[in-house]
Amino acid sequence: MSQRPLGDMDPEAFRLEGHRIVDWLADYLAAPEPYPVLSRSKPGDLVRALPAAAPEDGEPFEAIFADFEQHVVPGLTHWNHPGFFAYFAISASGPGILAEMLSAGLNVQAMLWRTSPAATELEQVTLRWLAQLMELPSTFEGVIYDTASISTLHALAAARELVVPDVRARGMLARPDLPGVRVYCSEHTHSSIDKAVVLLGLGQQAIHRIPADHYHAMRADHLAEAIAADRRAGLRPLAVIASVGTTSSTAVDPVDAIADICEAEGVWLHVDAAYAGVMAMVPAWRDSFRGMERADSIVVNPHKWLFTPFDLSVLFCRRMDVLKQAFSLVAEYLRTTDPSAVTNLMDTGIQLGRRFRALKLWMVLRYFGAEGIRARLEAHVHLARTFASWIDDAPDWERLAPVPFSVVCFRHHPAGVEDEEMLERVNAAILERVNQSGEAFLSHTKLDGRYTLRLAIGNIKTEERHVRRAWELLSSAAKTA
Amino acid sequence: MSQRPLGDMDPEAFRLEGHRIVDWLADYLAAPEPYPVLSRSKPGDLVRALPAAAPEDGEPFEAIFADFEQHVVPGLTHWNHPGFFAYFAISASGPGILAEMLSAGLNVQAMLWRTSPAATELEQVTLRWLAQLMELPSTFEGVIYDTASISTLHALAAARELVVPDVRARGMLARPDLPGVRVYCSEHTHSSIDKAVVLLGLGQQAIHRIPADHYHAMRADHLAEAIAADRRAGLRPLAVIASVGTTSSTAVDPVDAIADICEAEGVWLHVDAAYAGVMAMVPAWRDSFRGMERADSIVVNPHKWLFTPFDLSVLFCRRMDVLKQAFSLVAEYLRTTDPSAVTNLMDTGIQLGRRFRALKLWMVLRYFGAEGIRARLEAHVHLARTFASWIDDAPDWERLAPVPFSVVCFRHHPAGVEDEEMLERVNAAILERVNQSGEAFLSHTKLDGRYTLRLAIGNIKTEERHVRRAWELLSSAAKTA
Repeated sequence: MSQRPLGDMDPEAFRLEGHRIVDWLADYLAAPEPYPVLSRSKPGDLVRALPAAAPEDGEPFEAIFADFEQHVVPGLTHWNHPGFFAYFAISASGPGILAEMLSAGLNVQAMLWRTSPAATELEQVTLRWLAQLMELPSTFEGVIYDTASISTLHALAAARELVVPDVRARGMLARPDLPGVRVYCSEHTHSSIDKAVVLLGLGQQAIHRIPADHYHAMRADHLAEAIAADRRAGLRPLAVIASVGTTSSTAVDPVDAIADICEAEGVWLHVDAAYAGVMAMVPAWRDSFRGMERADSIVVNPHKWLFTPFDLSVLFCRRMDVLKQAFSLVAEYLRTTDPSAVTNLMDTGIQLGRRFRALKLWMVLRYFGAEGIRARLEAHVHLARTFASWIDDAPDWERLAPVPFSVVCFRHHPAGVEDEEMLERVNAAILERVNQSGEAFLSHTKLDGRYTLRLAIGNIKTEERHVRRAWELLSSAAKTA
Repeated sequence: MSQRPLGDMDPEAFRLEGHRIVDWLADYLAAPEPYPVLSRSKPGDLVRALPAAAPEDGEPFEAIFADFEQHVVPGLTHWNHPGFFAYFAISASGPGILAEMLSAGLNVQAMLWRTSPAATELEQVTLRWLAQLMELPSTFEGVIYDTASISTLHALAAARELVVPDVRARGMLARPDLPGVRVYCSEHTHSSIDKAVVLLGLGQQAIHRIPADHYHAMRADHLAEAIAADRRAGLRPLAVIASVGTTSSTAVDPVDAIADICEAEGVWLHVDAAYAGVMAMVPAWRDSFRGMERADSIVVNPHKWLFTPFDLSVLFCRRMDVLKQAFSLVAEYLRTTDPSAVTNLMDTGIQLGRRFRALKLWMVLRYFGAEGIRARLEAHVHLARTFASWIDDAPDWERLAPVPFSVVCFRHHPAGVEDEEMLERVNAAILERVNQSGEAFLSHTKLDGRYTLRLAIGNIKTEERHVRRAWELLSSAAKTA
């Protein structure tokens, strides 16, 4: 039985271990390259390495940390590694990590204004900064959630609130008064739309997928036709989701043309800019976002490409009143005597408890500054275009999509091989070999039925040498594939 | 324009600032008492103190940290303070904070097994430990979400999956085949049930609130009658929510009797043990949880009373297959070649992205050990009972509920005053005065229409002297109220 007194870890022990962890992290951030990006763990490795039951007696922190290094670290895939090019590459930057340390120690919970006024107000200040940087009109209010899935869920819940009368009180069952509804998105829209539609009880059949053009962008003319046909069939349009930067190829839907249709039809327009939205900060890229300012809601994830540790997703909404109407609900034990003018964040969402997430975004925006952030984003786009030029210049390689931002879609395509199954096998083998190298980690998708490799740039430490190394690994894997 | 190179903060600068923050946190943890528990901020204080726009150029971290100390800290309500007795008191313990530091720096995202095998497997190991400690049968699988609201939402989504045929594909609109449904809970059930029911499209009218007994526990006989009456009216029972430790008074619903009814009726039983569930680790308290092992799902929040920094909520579920049926959805860009036996956490929820939350729970369980945790929980219950005995012995004070765990419900009740409005005014004034002292922060609720003060013990640093001081403040406020 532990002889330690009750209460917390002794503060001096915390100080000692904290310094040790800061040193470990500083070393890790200085030189993450020795770690294989994609973990080489086999299924069950960690389960087998750890005891089947919790210890009865407390253990020294050193022993726990030793197990962390020996058993946990080898089972990590290193998202904070400059050779991470899979999915969307993300970053826990220095100022962001420091902010999370403070947030963890303070442990404030920002459900009500009074449960930490600064957490609520820093969220307001920081999101106003971000909205300005993205040139969004001041009619947008922002709120921080954990993930884009949750941001989008709230946007669609607000849209449902407008279209399904009394849904909050009466729900959708046993209501012969209600017609079916439709949610429109392109075939390249993120899977979180499906999950939100399922959760909200609309059913996946409510999703009307609009065909995309050759560059994987939604065809606005098809959208208009689809809405008209659905209306003729007695269905009610509930929302349109336009993406600026789709997940597979970062394609850009024609938001302005889609906004015209949504305005004419009176349909909620949600813009998924979870990954690429931050590029609206860069004047030369504003064109890609034209029409976004006319949306009803926009999701942008600082935890993706704004150097902010996971998780922090922002929903900007022009109809926050509708969102509150859908979710505000004050139990007696949460009632306060604070002025009614204060914002209580619990009113804007399904989650009652909220971490102090604004702190890290505030520290990141201040530490790098708007110019510093723009410079980093442009550098990433430049790296992607450099890689794309290598692909374009290589005889046995093929680019499969434009590069509007920092993701390149491509494949190995040896002359004369036209069998799609063989090309898939070859490229999957290349991907496997590169990922096993430990020096780079890429992922894949399918575009127009073609197996497609993706190189996504977004980690703040990625430099040209990392991209060049990935290209060497790909080229060399192709030779033996 | 900043002269810094691109890339991240220099690792040596990170090291320096990290050490500074660890020292700041160690000092804060050693002596949080000087900080007023409830912030004295006025609405708008922080908004006015900060610039209206983000800086164009990056700023030194020292300047950002100075603003944090000067402007943010005074706007914090100190949840990690031993004088925090409001809502449910929570703790960021030393080992939990250290784990969060690592988690922030590594920034792994555990959506797929391969995106960090250790994050997925450590979640499995740690939740198996927790389930064993709570004596749950091995038929329960666990999954970590952010908050109890989200855990409960998933439980009810799974229940809906069973009761509403084809809901995933067809949704609930325009389906004359479907009857209305009902969700049963007591009048003391947490407001997250309402929000989940609204989100799922069932409508608040679907909530059938069952009356409670004199001790605020659900009347199982009334539940049986309500289900029978609803069935006669053509409605279909969807789920019953039983609470072990309600939010207002920590009342314990008769789970065993409720489980009998749910089994007989074939209805999903969800147990809300978000706060008190950890007490199932203590043998002497097992009786309060009898029947919980028969539930279909259970929510317990280590971020509440298990010394784990916010956020970390656990859903234990006996029907994880149903949950996956509701949510599993694999886009091509998330497809892997990993063995089909591995768990991909994205299949069990609405959120695709997941932080590495298991690390902190694992470090907390190991650092304190099962015995150390039980001892701390029992010490908290002992403190609550001590406070309750002071209330019981004081002539002008009245206890308003039993103390099954670590929350005491009470009020000042001067002899001869029976007017409820006056008692509310007096007690609200006492609460206001105590909270303004900065030494303690309590919250209130209503029980049977009576304005009720709550003293919630749960912070790991709370000792008898803090509880005694709260009692002195209350007594002295009562004299002048």
